[in-house]
This record gives sequence, structure tokens and C-alpha cells, in this order.
Amino acid sequence: MLTLSCPDRTGIVARIAGFLAEAGGWIVEAAYHADAEGNWFFTRQVVRADSLPFDVDELRARFAEVAAEFGGEATWQVTDTGERKKAVLLVTKEPHCLHDLLGRVSAGELPVRLEAVIGNHDGLEDIVRAHGVEFHHVPFPAPGTPDREAAKTAAFAEVRKLVDVHEPDAIVLARFMQILPAELCTAWAGRAINIHHSFLPSFAGARPYHQAHARGVKLIGATCHYVTADLDAGPIIEQDVIRVDHGDTVADMVRRGRDAERLVLARGLRWHLEDRVLVHGNKTVVFH
Amino acid sequence: MLTLSCPDRTGIVARIAGFLAEAGGWIVEAAYHADAEGNWFFTRQVVRADSLPFDVDELRARFAEVAAEFGGEATWQVTDTGERKKAVLLVTKEPHCLHDLLGRVSAGELPVRLEAVIGNHDGLEDIVRAHGVEFHHVPFPAPGTPDREAAKTAAFAEVRKLVDVHEPDAIVLARFMQILPAELCTAWAGRAINIHHSFLPSFAGARPYHQAHARGVKLIGATCHYVTADLDAGPIIEQDVIRVDHGDTVADMVRRGRDAERLVLARGLRWHLEDRVLVHGNKTVVFH
Amino acid sequence: MLTLSCPDRTGIVARIAGFLAEAGGWIVEAAYHADAEGNWFFTRQVVRADSLPFDVDELRARFAEVAAEFGGEATWQVTDTGERKKAVLLVTKEPHCLHDLLGRVSAGELPVRLEAVIGNHDGLEDIVRAHGVEFHHVPFPAPGTPDREAAKTAAFAEVRKLVDVHEPDAIVLARFMQILPAELCTAWAGRAINIHHSFLPSFAGARPYHQAHARGVKLIGATCHYVTADLDAGPIIEQDVIRVDHGDTVADMVRRGRDAERLVLARGLRWHLEDRVLVHGNKTVVFH
Amino acid sequence: MLTLSCPDRTGIVARIAGFLAEAGGWIVEAAYHADAEGNWFFTRQVVRADSLPFDVDELRARFAEVAAEFGGEATWQVTDTGERKKAVLLVTKEPHCLHDLLGRVSAGELPVRLEAVIGNHDGLEDIVRAHGVEFHHVPFPAPGTPDREAAKTAAFAEVRKLVDVHEPDAIVLARFMQILPAELCTAWAGRAINIHHSFLPSFAGARPYHQAHARGVKLIGATCHYVTADLDAGPIIEQDVIRVDHGDTVADMVRRGRDAERLVLARGLRWHLEDRVLVHGNKTVVFH
Repeated sequence: MLTLSCPDRTGIVARIAGFLAEAGGWIVEAAYHADAEGNWFFTRQVVRADSLPFDVDELRARFAEVAAEFGGEATWQVTDTGERKKAVLLVTKEPHCLHDLLGRVSAGELPVRLEAVIGNHDGLEDIVRAHGVEFHHVPFPAPGTPDREAAKTAAFAEVRKLVDVHEPDAIVLARFMQILPAELCTAWAGRAINIHHSFLPSFAGARPYHQAHARGVKLIGATCHYVTADLDAGPIIEQDVIRVDHGDTVADMVRRGRDAERLVLARGLRWHLEDRVLVHGNKTVVFH
Repeated sequence: MLTLSCPDRTGIVARIAGFLAEAGGWIVEAAYHADAEGNWFFTRQVVRADSLPFDVDELRARFAEVAAEFGGEATWQVTDTGERKKAVLLVTKEPHCLHDLLGRVSAGELPVRLEAVIGNHDGLEDIVRAHGVEFHHVPFPAPGTPDREAAKTAAFAEVRKLVDVHEPDAIVLARFMQILPAELCTAWAGRAINIHHSFLPSFAGARPYHQAHARGVKLIGATCHYVTADLDAGPIIEQDVIRVDHGDTVADMVRRGRDAERLVLARGLRWHLEDRVLVHGNKTVVFH
Repeated sequence: MLTLSCPDRTGIVARIAGFLAEAGGWIVEAAYHADAEGNWFFTRQVVRADSLPFDVDELRARFAEVAAEFGGEATWQVTDTGERKKAVLLVTKEPHCLHDLLGRVSAGELPVRLEAVIGNHDGLEDIVRAHGVEFHHVPFPAPGTPDREAAKTAAFAEVRKLVDVHEPDAIVLARFMQILPAELCTAWAGRAINIHHSFLPSFAGARPYHQAHARGVKLIGATCHYVTADLDAGPIIEQDVIRVDHGDTVADMVRRGRDAERLVLARGLRWHLEDRVLVHGNKTVVFH
Repeated sequence: MLTLSCPDRTGIVARIAGFLAEAGGWIVEAAYHADAEGNWFFTRQVVRADSLPFDVDELRARFAEVAAEFGGEATWQVTDTGERKKAVLLVTKEPHCLHDLLGRVSAGELPVRLEAVIGNHDGLEDIVRAHGVEFHHVPFPAPGTPDREAAKTAAFAEVRKLVDVHEPDAIVLARFMQILPAELCTAWAGRAINIHHSFLPSFAGARPYHQAHARGVKLIGATCHYVTADLDAGPIIEQDVIRVDHGDTVADMVRRGRDAERLVLARGLRWHLEDRVLVHGNKTVVFH
């Protein structure tokens, strides 16, 4: 699986296709996007490994030379779909996204190895262990705790250690409800994925369903996005909405919105794991 | 057709149902909503006129006595679905909502008599007249015109005169693109309906598709709402969304978003004309 | 919670509302439907128990007298939402609906007590037990087994015994993939709920995703319905669809369709448990 | 704009991309699909004309040589997006799809020149002429007419003559409600587009909304497909659905379904006109 983004110019498609054809590579999927405004080019190609006369490392080495022709701003990667990617989940008390992801992994629906779940409460420990996944409880200081900031910093340091040991391809904030410190946003850039329970940019921040109810909107939503230092403002991977009406209380919205959260997070995570998401500036190209 | 909203208490349903049953009224549709937080009660009932031993005026007179029991805050109306409601449309250059509404009226899909269309450009005059509807051209001053504010005030006064002569039940801003002055918002409160080309509260104000494109959202939308003095912040009647992706330019969004605008406005207008929309504070109850 | 369906005539709403008002009953939700073609009336009302001067049994006894006035064809029930309903799930190997329902029950999202899960394979036993629910393995004879019909009859008799001991309000075929014998359809009429992986009536029977792929449809779907002796032809409770395109193989459809199956079954089951579904002939009235 | 479908093998992408790159062609859009089961390859590429050193005819001539390498089964075309395609509409009394398409053409939304509208009733003549489009009335014999078949044959011959004179790229049955004779299906193969008012394959044939109402489905739909000699069984271009409930009568479904019909036909027609639809067997590849 090969992805590339670089400044656009003529001949890129031909160069890559020619490179692959010369090696006998059988292209199973190929997607291209040229952003006319930003003059940027994006591609994702899936090549059958057994059609190539060399292995993935050799492909990577050879493609590096091709990519060099596209300039210093080009970013690319070649990954082996035979190697399962790794994910770590961060959770708090809300169980629905966790249950959903555990179910999907257990059903073989998501191409991922779940390395660990880290919770700032311990209520979800049993179900995680029942799925054969390790669980770590890292308590966070409650509001009003003395030296709360220091305790929080320590807790995040502990979380970071527990996450980084796995070198995960995805760190999923499955309704984690804690704002990541800037240095974690940087360290996990392009790998930390959040699910926000509103149709962003509407209702960023706290209690989005309360905000939606107060405004009287007729649809509520969920947004899966990469985490950046700007709260709820990172590149959007996927969004969806659910119809509500005047009869829905905030509690109804909370319950019904979970279906959007589950699906949007599962779809966004799948696309991230399949290298379908290319970030450029604050936007994403998602090749379906 | 009878609608009522009033402070909630026990026995309202029984009182109304009893009143109608006593008169032999055959209830074809009945919908209720009790807003537990606001402690407010809403109902809409459709009664077969031929099941009553008296006419609509007499029903109105008798129901006034019943409604009086529900307190001074109660608002209600009794309308005769046999009398077609009246609408006036305000347009500028964008033709898609106008074409759509003309087509629906012509196909007998909307329960309304289209009295007039008023445009601040004259490009849509021919098609309006081809549908047998009167058209008035009221030019608005371009940016940079000397004494623009005064000219605008005069233009709005002219629009108001042309609208008010019809005593319309609905004044539809079918992509009118001019901000109504506060006194018109007041004069037409509960009757002026706007279509905004975003999923409010996201992207209020000017050029919402540009805003949506810049943010990289994965769904664009449209919102039909009552006009109030707060720009794009009135009670929402209906909303819907359309999926977009990284390949959609602003021009694509403008084109594709029209389908949401057409449908959302047509649905919102229909519900308004059928007395399905009850406004309470800044929110609506919409009985489907 | 009170539901009633009976031949339509004037005064039913008034009679029920009057009955409840007289007892001081506070109506929290009230929905009505009059089927003009079939001349049938349906209602569902939710009354606050603490607003009544008597208990649910007494309400039931008193309402029986009211209902008797509506004729011998009237069907009604009064249930206590304080008493949790009971469900039994039937499963085979496909885990996604089971995982989803277990997750929802565990998250407190579904108003139900899960009494037991019965599987004709044992692969899902561990996860069921991890959720604290009993699991029974009842093997079914494979195709080609000698005396297969007799073995199947015996297996169904065992399933029936394991189900009926719980007197469940819902028997959920969560991708059970075995056709219920006619006598079980009768015994469980109005309680057995199936999820079929197509948008019925398209693609009834076996391998609906294969059928959908062969026909080249652009949307796939799922249908939640009551089980009757006619395969996949019982009253439909809920349906939904998911967009597919030419790039989706049968395997992709199977995977992606699961999201429709999960949601449609969860919604249909919820509505059934909340007494929102009234069956009349081969159709349902679903009060949202 | 270049489309090609042919048996799949390695190197096709490279060959085409190389051919275009050699000529300096700037690829604006490129989409590929390899159907693994059928071992067939499909592509659509949009190249900026001003990036090529020759004109469209020369491109066509040169590409013919390339395409010849892909075998005798390959089908391809090179079209000039600067040349507006031509369409003829067939209608009967139902006006909604006609109004919608006239509105879209008039608003510049559809890349097409509307050559003529042919109706078997004359009720829509005025609105067609108001849009500056020619209208032909070809009456069809009513049921019970003596020699009905002969009269029908004559009427179809007249329709064919009126259509063929324009050599249209699209013949749109915008709710035409007459079954095309087999020889017209053949003559217009791949150009005749129908809108059927159900979610096919459910409810093919007559009165689909009546069928849907009788079955009690919770979604109704519309399907845009190429016309073949098998009634309502041609390759599907686009489908969509609308939610209905127990309160919707057949008349409500007819009215509400029109929104699906309008949108599905408009989308299907647009994609056809933009050469996004490649037919293979009884299925379509639609490049968005």
C-alpha cells in the first residue's frame, strides 16, 4: 500500500504507474486527487505483493528514489497490509464506543491489533480483560483536588508511557473526555484520533448535546478528527448526523447520538488504519 | 385544524377531546407534545368539518371559551383547510429555490396560493409570469452607491407595501440574500421564512459554502428558519445535509447544496402552511 | 403505559382522555393514529404512575371496562414501565448483532433484562458469560446428517424449552440463520423479532448480499420484522439502508451491511420493548 | 474526457498515463476500477485540452492505437467537454420530474442542451415552451381503443422519428409511463434513461407506491436505470430512499416519493452526461 502527497505537476501518475508496471506490479486499487486550489497531488495505490519480484522493504527503497523526484515537500509511505497495525484506546466511564470497538475487533471487522486500553476510571476493566486486552487504570485528579495541575501532568506522563511502549499506529480517544496537553498532541500528531459528539464546527467544547438542545437543531451529529492543540479543531476525518425532534430531551439526544458516535469513530478509525486518510494542512483527503 | 400551546397541567387533552366529542367532531389527526422542562403543552388536531354541526367560525368562537380556561399565555388558532393560504416569495438572482417552488405549486404539491414574487433583479420575471404569477422588480442599491442606506430603506418600504397588500400567511425568502430590517422582522414575525445554505449554527452569515470548504467538513447542509432580528438565529423549522468529500470544490458545494436548499425549504414551507409548526421561545415544535 | 387498537369511531380519544383525567392521570406522552382505509384506531399513552391514586393493577382493571366499550375486536394492554421486560437471544456464529446488544444492555441503553443467549454454535459463549448472562449451546444437525429433520425438531424443542422457561417479552433472532418451525412462529407470535440482512421485500431468503451484488443495487439494507410462518414476510418494524458502489465486493457488503443490521435491530427491539409497536394485519404502527 | 473498459491485466494504468504524459497532458481527474471477479478494468480520465499540443480529434485518433493494445473487447470513448451534450425528454401528465429538469437546465446546473420534450398528453406544453424548448404532442391510444396495438406502434414510430432527428446523447423517460418496444430499447441502448418510482428490485411494474403501502415498508425509493427490454431490470445508475411511516397513505407516498424521483433522476442524468457511468453486463460503474 503506497500513499504519496506532493506538489502537483504533469506526469506524476505516469511516473508512478510506469515504476510499478516496470516491476510487474498488479494494481488492485488506485485513487488520485489533485487539489487545484492548493496545487497539491495525492494518491493511494494498493499493489499485490505477490506480483512484485521483491519484498516490501525493497519496494520502499526503490520508491524512495521515485518520490525524491517530486520535491522536498513530498510525503509518502509504503506499508505492508500483511502486518497488522496497532492501536491503544483511551477511555473514561462512557462505555459505548469501547464496546463497539471491542465487538468489531473481536468480529474481525477492523484490521488492527488492540494493544491496550487505558482508562481514568476502572469501571470498564472487566469487559476489556474479557476480550483478552490489557487494561491500565490511570486515575486523574478530580476538580478541586489540591495541586490538580501537577497531578494531571503526572497522570498524562503515565498515560504517555503506557501508550508509547506499544508504538501504536493509532491512539483512539474513545470518549476520553480529557484535553490532551500540547506536547502529547505533538508527539501523537497524525495518530491521535478523537470522537467529538457534535457536528463540528457547531458545538465544540463541553456538553455539545446540551448546546444542540438549547439551539433547537433538527439533526445532531458526531465528528471523528485528528487531535491537535486547538480543541476540537483538528482535521476532520468523518462526520454523520441523526435526526431529532422537539420530543427529544437532552438525555434522548445523549442516548441517540451514541449511534452516530459509534459509527463515525469506527469508520474514521478503519480509514486511518487502511492508510486512506492523507492530511494536508487542516484538511483531509479520504480515499474510499 | 386547531393548534394550541399553553402552560401544561393535567386534563388539557381530556378537555379538548371532550369538547370535540360533544360536538360530534371526527378527529382525523391528533398530535400532542408536553415539554417537561418548560412545562408547556402543545397540540394540533385536524377535525373533519362535515362531522361538526356548525361552521368554522362557530367552532372558533366556541373553542375560544375552552382556550380561555388554559390561561392568558395560551395561544391558539382554528383554521379552515378549505381556504387556501397565501404566500409571497422574495428572490434575487439564484433561481433554484424559485424554480422548485413554482414547479411544486404548479404540480399541486403545496397547499398555497402564490400571490406574487418580488425580485431585486429582474432576471426571473419571465419564468414567474409563465407560471401565471405576478412579478415585481424592486432594485436594491449596489455597494458603493451614494446614500445607499436611504435607498435601501426606500426599497424595503416598497417591498413591504407589495407584500402586505396580499396579507400573506407566508413570506418566503427564497435565497433573497438581503438582511431584513428589524421592523420587517417584527411585522412579519412567525410568517417570514428563510432558507440558509448551511447547517446552522455552523457557518452563519456570508458565504457559508466557502466557510464549509475552508473547514474541511464532510457534510454540508441547509436550514429553514423563521426570520428574526438576530441574523440566521431564528427558530429552526427544518435542516438536512448532503455528503461531500475532498474532491468537491466550493463551486461543487454550491451546486450540490442546492438540492438540500430546495428540499429543506419546500418541507419547511409545507409544514408552516399546514400549521404543523408551533413556535415557543427560540425553538419549534413540528408535528409530522 | 397504555396501548389500544380498535375499530375507529368518534369519541375514543375523549373517552380515554376523560377516563385518565378523572383519575388525575398526568399524560407524559400521547400518540394516536387513525387508519382511514382500514377504519382502525391506535393509541399509546404514557401516564405518570405517581399521578394516579391507585396502582397499575387497579388501572388495568378499570381500563378493561373502558376498553370493553370499543368492541370485541379491541386489543389493549397496560404495562408498568417500572418492571423491566425480559429478552432471550438466539444466535449462531455471526457475532456483530450479539456484541452490539450486549454492549447496549451493559451500557444501560436498552430497557431490558437479558435472561439468556442460546446458540447453535458455542463460539460466542465466553463473551456472553463475561457479560454475566447465561449461555446455552444447542447444536443443530449439519446438512447431510442422517435423520436431519428429526434432529432439527429435537433441537428446536430444546430451544423452545430454554426460551419459554423465561416467559420472555422478546425472543430476538440476532442473526440466528435457522428457519423457525411454524408452531414456534405461532407460540411466539408478536414476540419473536428477526433481523434480515436486506431491504425487504427485495432479496428475501438466503444470501441477500450475494443477490444484491448480482443485481447491482446502489444501496443495501436491513429489515427488522416480526417472525411469521411466511419466511421474511412478517410485519416490518424498521428498515434502513447503506450506500454501496461498484467497488464493493460481496465481502465488503457483508461487512458494511452489519452496521445497518446492528442499528435496525437495536432500534426495532427498543421500540418493541417500549410498547411502541402495534401490529395490525401484516403491518405495524410504530409510535416514535 | 476519456473512458475505457477492457479485460484487466498489468500495465494498463501505466500505458494510459504514459501516453498522456508523453503528450504533456494535465490530468485533472482520474478514476480506476478493477473488477476482480469479472477481471475487467475501467477508467475515466479528465485531461485539460489546453495542455495537449493537438485537438480532440487527434487525441481520439492517437488513443485508438493505444486502446487497440487492450484487445477486441475494449470499449472506449474520447469526448470534448466543450461540446454540450443533447437530451430529449419523454413525459406524460406527471409534471414533477419535468419541472425539476427544466429548472436545473435553466439554472445552468446540468451540462446539457435540451432539444425537445415529447408528451403523450399536451398538459405540459406551455411550461416547456416558456423555457424555450420545443414540445411535440404524440397521443397514445387509451385502453379499449380498437386496434390499440397498431395505434401504439404508430405512436412509437412517431416518437422515434422526433427523437432520432436530434441524435441525442440522452433520451430521458421523465415519468413517461409507457413501456418502450424492444426495438427502441435496442436503438437507444445506453442512452435511454428511466426513473422508476420504487427501490428496485422491489416493486417493479405498475403502481409501486400501492405495492409499498400494502407491504408496510418503512422506506420508499426511486431508481434511475438504463432502459432494456426487460421491464425495470436494466443496469441501475442511482437509487435513493425516503423514510415513511404508518401515517403515510398511498397519496402521501406518491407526493413524498416525488422528491426521491426528482433527485435520483437528476443525479443519474448528470452522471450519464458527464461520462461517469460505464455499463458492463447488467451493472454500472459510476465514477464520482
